[in-house]
This record gives sequence, structure tokens and C-alpha cells, in this order.
Amino acid sequence: MKRFLTQFKKFQYFYPYTVAIVGAHSENLLNYMACAWHTALSFDPPLFGVLISKKRFTHQVISEAREFTANFLSAEKVKLSAQMGRKSGHDMDKIKEFQVKLAPSKIISSPIIEEAYVCFECKVAEIRAYGDHDLFVGQVLAIHEEEKVFNEEGVLNPGKVRPLLYLGSDFYITIEPDSLQHIIPD
Amino acid sequence: MKRFLTQFKKFQYFYPYTVAIVGAHSENLLNYMACAWHTALSFDPPLFGVLISKKRFTHQVISEAREFTANFLSAEKVKLSAQMGRKSGHDMDKIKEFQVKLAPSKIISSPIIEEAYVCFECKVAEIRAYGDHDLFVGQVLAIHEEEKVFNEEGVLNPGKVRPLLYLGSDFYITIEPDSLQHIIPD
Repeated sequence: MKRFLTQFKKFQYFYPYTVAIVGAHSENLLNYMACAWHTALSFDPPLFGVLISKKRFTHQVISEAREFTANFLSAEKVKLSAQMGRKSGHDMDKIKEFQVKLAPSKIISSPIIEEAYVCFECKVAEIRAYGDHDLFVGQVLAIHEEEKVFNEEGVLNPGKVRPLLYLGSDFYITIEPDSLQHIIPD
Repeated sequence: MKRFLTQFKKFQYFYPYTVAIVGAHSENLLNYMACAWHTALSFDPPLFGVLISKKRFTHQVISEAREFTANFLSAEKVKLSAQMGRKSGHDMDKIKEFQVKLAPSKIISSPIIEEAYVCFECKVAEIRAYGDHDLFVGQVLAIHEEEKVFNEEGVLNPGKVRPLLYLGSDFYITIEPDSLQHIIPD
């Protein structure tokens, strides 16, 4: 039996999603935030989209930089994710305060996050408003992947890393490696 | 130590994502498919976006219907998801062939999928091309949620349902309920 709702203040029934730490270094600004609304948009060219509210400091930084990195954390890094999600670059230098380890990108100027198991270097192809968020369309120029975590097709090995998943309202969870299944229908 | 890639055929490093079964009933057509590329776009108005290749039969159906439902399955339904993802409505009647149970929506004409633990009724607000996929922007008019699965804020209770997660290349996984954490930074 299902309940029927037409009013819902939060909108998080579709989770869990992996946590992406997104941000950039513009001429004068450096900031990253935890982002739960993201998706691939295209294989060819490879486009990855992240949704960011206009209120976020990161919105300003990526808009100026016209590039960003998206960095995915394992479940052990839950505290860092919560800090990068709930605290604002408007109020503090999050990189310094939370001792985030940055590493240089190879193509763009904005750094990747060293603690991440996979990082995308993206050039902003478009910024488009959808309701109260803007979609930052990133053309993925390069991927940094922790060795041995993914197979040749880019499938994560759950025996090697357990991705941090956001469940909404400050709840986090991760995968159960033993539940892995490979299913090809007849 | 990270490997650096600028060539990647598949693009699935950001998974796992929950599996959404999306589709619609237009005047003459009825079809649903498994969709792994999706995200919320806005809280107010509530917008949910799904990416669909122009090659998919569901692309045609939702384009005609100007509405769709997005339906989320638990891990037990992995076979149904694989069937809805790997088989095409161009070749067969998937609803009949795989005995998918449909139930009426309350606002739109396209049915929801009864096996799902949560379903969104969406009106298409916009269709926009991004590379080789189109983003179908759905305004969420209503949500059907399995009773007791979500808390009042819409956070899934992992003790009640284990969502089916797609890991890429026909691999599926689910969450580990005991790994749940509630973290609010100081």
C-alpha cells in the first residue's frame, strides 16, 4: 500500500547518491562543496552535470573559473563530506579549516582532492537555470582514478573501495560488497 | 597513487546510482526502461531530470506523452531492472513480456509501477539536448511512497527497503543497513 503526496518539502526519495565534492580555483577564489545532485549527461562528448544553488559560494567560484573538479569520497571520509556540505565558503576557508589535501589537475587549473578515489577534471560547457538551482554542464577532460579500484570498463570494485552515499538530511550509508550481482537478461 | 585517463569509452566512475524505471503511456504507445542517469534539479518547483538517448523507444513515448513516471526498485527486483534496461520496446512489449504490474497514477495518465517502493508522477517541463542524450525535465506533481519506508522528511529507512543500485556494465549492488550514519559537523 502506498501513501500519496502532493506536498513534500524535502525531495530526497530517490537517494542514495554518491557524494561529489565539487569546486574550483578562480583567479581570486578557492572553494569546494559536497554535492548530492549530479548525473552524467552524455557519453560523447563526455558531459557530467552538477546542480548548485545560486546561494552557494561554490556557485560564484565555478561561474568565475569556468571549470571545476568533481571528487568522489569513500565512506571513511564521511566527516569531511559533512563539513564540506554543511559549512559555507561564505563564512570560512573550508580547505584550510578542514585540512583538505589538494593535488594539481593535469589539464585545468583547479585542483583535485587527494583523498578522493576518483576525480573528474571538467571545463564548463554551459550553465543553465532549472528552478532554484543551476545546472553546471562539465565537459570531462580527464579522470584520475585510484589504481586497482576500477576495472577496465570503469566499474568500481566494491572489495577495494566503499563509496560514500548520501541518503538525505545528514544521513550517510555505503554499499554491501557481498551484494554484488552481475545480471544479463536472457 | 592515481592513474590519469583522457580516453574512457564507458563513463561510469560516479556510480552507484539508484535505478529509476521511467516511461509513459502516450496515445498509442506504452513503454518503460531502466534509467541510471537521473538527478533532482530543483526543490521549488520540484524538478526531476532523466537522461534518455534518442535511440531509445522510451524517448519517443515520453516525447509524445509529455509526461512520465519514475519508479524506484528494491534490490530483489534486479532481474526486472536488467530486463527493462537491456531489452528494447522497439523489439517487444516489455510490460507484457516481463509481466510488469502497472497501477494508475492519480494526476497524470501514465501508470506507475506497482513493484516500486517509490514513484514520481511528472509532467514534462522541457526537453533539452546535452551531447548524445536528451534531458527530460519533469515537474514532480505527486509522489507515491511505500508506507513506513521513508521518514517524514523523505529519508529512506534502510531497515525497511534496500534500494537497487546500478554499478555499471550490468553490475548491481545494494546498501549495507548497518553502515547508516547521521553526521552533523560541529
